Amino acid sequence: MTSSSQLARPLRIGLIGAGTVGGGVYEIIMNRLGGGGGSSSSNTTAGQSSSSPSNNHHRSANLHPVITKICVRDASKPRTFHIDPTHTQIVTDVASIINDTDIDLVVEVAGGTTFAKDAVYASLKMGKSVVTANKALIAENLDELIGLIHDVNTKNGVKFGYEASVCGGIPIIHTLSGGCYKGDIINEIMGICNGTTNYMLGKMEEGVDYNEVLKEAQALGFAEADPTADVEGHDVRAKISILAKLSFGTTVPVHTIPCMGITNVSVIDFAYAKSMGCTIKLIGTATRKSQFGEHDGALSVYVSPKLVPNDHPLASATGCGNAVVVNSANLGTALYTGPGAGRYPTANSIVADIMRVADSTCPSAPFPLSSSIEIDNDYESAFYIRISFQDGLGIVRKVGEVAESMGMSIHSILQQPITDRMAADTVVTTEACKLSQVQEFCNRIEKEDFVLCPPVFMPMIPEY
Amino acid sequence: MTSSSQLARPLRIGLIGAGTVGGGVYEIIMNRLGGGGGSSSSNTTAGQSSSSPSNNHHRSANLHPVITKICVRDASKPRTFHIDPTHTQIVTDVASIINDTDIDLVVEVAGGTTFAKDAVYASLKMGKSVVTANKALIAENLDELIGLIHDVNTKNGVKFGYEASVCGGIPIIHTLSGGCYKGDIINEIMGICNGTTNYMLGKMEEGVDYNEVLKEAQALGFAEADPTADVEGHDVRAKISILAKLSFGTTVPVHTIPCMGITNVSVIDFAYAKSMGCTIKLIGTATRKSQFGEHDGALSVYVSPKLVPNDHPLASATGCGNAVVVNSANLGTALYTGPGAGRYPTANSIVADIMRVADSTCPSAPFPLSSSIEIDNDYESAFYIRISFQDGLGIVRKVGEVAESMGMSIHSILQQPITDRMAADTVVTTEACKLSQVQEFCNRIEKEDFVLCPPVFMPMIPEY
Repeated sequence: MTSSSQLARPLRIGLIGAGTVGGGVYEIIMNRLGGGGGSSSSNTTAGQSSSSPSNNHHRSANLHPVITKICVRDASKPRTFHIDPTHTQIVTDVASIINDTDIDLVVEVAGGTTFAKDAVYASLKMGKSVVTANKALIAENLDELIGLIHDVNTKNGVKFGYEASVCGGIPIIHTLSGGCYKGDIINEIMGICNGTTNYMLGKMEEGVDYNEVLKEAQALGFAEADPTADVEGHDVRAKISILAKLSFGTTVPVHTIPCMGITNVSVIDFAYAKSMGCTIKLIGTATRKSQFGEHDGALSVYVSPKLVPNDHPLASATGCGNAVVVNSANLGTALYTGPGAGRYPTANSIVADIMRVADSTCPSAPFPLSSSIEIDNDYESAFYIRISFQDGLGIVRKVGEVAESMGMSIHSILQQPITDRMAADTVVTTEACKLSQVQEFCNRIEKEDFVLCPPVFMPMIPEY
Repeated sequence: MTSSSQLARPLRIGLIGAGTVGGGVYEIIMNRLGGGGGSSSSNTTAGQSSSSPSNNHHRSANLHPVITKICVRDASKPRTFHIDPTHTQIVTDVASIINDTDIDLVVEVAGGTTFAKDAVYASLKMGKSVVTANKALIAENLDELIGLIHDVNTKNGVKFGYEASVCGGIPIIHTLSGGCYKGDIINEIMGICNGTTNYMLGKMEEGVDYNEVLKEAQALGFAEADPTADVEGHDVRAKISILAKLSFGTTVPVHTIPCMGITNVSVIDFAYAKSMGCTIKLIGTATRKSQFGEHDGALSVYVSPKLVPNDHPLASATGCGNAVVVNSANLGTALYTGPGAGRYPTANSIVADIMRVADSTCPSAPFPLSSSIEIDNDYESAFYIRISFQDGLGIVRKVGEVAESMGMSIHSILQQPITDRMAADTVVTTEACKLSQVQEFCNRIEKEDFVLCPPVFMPMIPEY
């Protein structure tokens, strides 16, 4: 139970991956927390703060974890951080970490779902605790991983920490898995979980074109050379599937989650959104439909850009910031915001998990809930639909006809001043309807000869 | 370690106090979580949500704590909730809970620092874990309590939960004591921790006079008949002393914390604040001064109304809402917001603590940090100073003279249009200076014959 019993000797860590986050973890553990002996803790470079001796109260409860091995692809490659050879051995063969009986805990920050998966599974099977930031690995193998963790935990108390996998820097996993909602009933959880796209949307709101802002984000290092995982919403999809499991106990297979990224969002959509007192954010949503009472029906999980009222808590996440809103029976609305990503925020979450393994406060069951709540990802919402067309007669009538024929009720039709009669836009907002209805509506409208391209649709968050 | 070992039999709870919060705790434990056998869990009244069977996944890991006794002052008094006599005995003698060897955990929601203190201490000494919402009790006896908890925990693993004592509904204690910042260095923590005064200030911003809004808050049940603890800032003072201990490891005796409430704030201050792009919030602050580097000097803890820029995260807490902002080396700014108070939010935090005691994830050390950081509550800030005077000649010169003679540098002098030459206001804003300087400045200015009453001063949060 107590840390003393755990730490007759220091917790020994094997670090797999020495990139941005790995470097941050190394600096915090070895410098600030004194894993390197503490002598260098007065000139740590971790974070933005100088760490004068008077800060060392943060080195608490005699916990001095130490990183004994780092596994990298290329040992000769220069690093952005100093690796202390007296404490840490650089290796290129992951087996030399997995098979090292002296290593208690493996930190996986290599990324990917093949090599990383093998390393994580093998480490757990070898009786080592694992801390990872790998949301894709967790989301794609959720039930299998939970089963494996349960087995190794029962056998020899092995722990699994993954705070850094969702909104690094925001302790949302700790909050959801740590019992804060055990006496509560969560109705809905929504997250802005991807700093890159949040930054891009913020720039588009200022009028910068999508392709231009993508280039800028790549130049700044916010976006990858291949930005697919971010801009197509795959990163958010993995994260919301993890938050859905923690909030509702239901495993929603990642490939079944409707996922729309930001590639179809254009500057004109922000103009229409503004006219409605809204902004646009890429949001992962897990929400229960209403059946007998409020939020007691099937669970819907989806990723999509959404129209967010300017006074809604989620509108407050700007730049690369992340935000998570939880709506529950006891608390109503709770908001958690923070940096969400970056070297030290993500490293901070990994170190927090390491320290909880060290002092045995890391929960035995990383995903405590399980349930048989029905899944229905054909979610319901009011929708925003933008139709690009060549100006002509009878367009509104046609739009109305198609909507009516499908029993889809229109809330309003908006029209920014037409500047080019050959390429105009109109926006239809709907009353609450199903995703499948909107998709069908768009398919039919697209076939009309006056329509220039597939309509763009987004769910709308109601007035706050 | 695992819940199964803990729960060969259900966790038995003695509840001291059956008021608003106690009733919420009883409903959640006995109805929703099935402590009453679960039969009634499908018609729980807890929270706003109906609890259909499909919600029962929240009754996880075979945890069925049960409240076996409730201690009340008057057993005949009608309750706002149903007490099930088959499971729960109503008692009026607290000893019958403390001495009941069948009771594992005592929940104290009676409040106060005399009877409640005796009950909490006695329960701990009897080897019972304690969960309490009593911030005054904790703050006034912090080191003594920590010592006692350490002893009983070492002897027999007794735990102490107090999530509900600060910002009930916001898991800030869980976040700070649960290791989320163990690899980080906290520079500053600021909290809007009192829903009553936040509601009142919001109304005053709309132009409602202090005395009027106080009456309204009392009528609505937001404010007590004796509102002193809220409006004089004593409630926030207790809470910020707890957050300071968790953030910096330093015990700051409550009576040494400079504490100013909202009784001197007037509608005119909001007019001046607005002209500076600010609002006014009652804020508990614990911050480190800068010595060699940033935030590496002495710790200052204080309670005061503050001018908050409208784009600062703390400005987002409206109505009775609470908000906590943590500034740290790894994360920069993180914001946690939630209801902060009320029956179910506070009860939710108590139940979360109970469940963490039940599954042994409650930290052994509720206050994990200790440090020898110097305390200097003569804090530094830019200040807002409002001077009420009879209009006349040479006032600005006199104000300038006094400031200059004290080496206090003036940033600006603001003047709303004068409507009554016999009772006018002017506002002086200062560059960064010490609390003691501003107090001395106000003492001297007050002696000038043109000054009508003691000047009102508030620290200002810099532009965000």
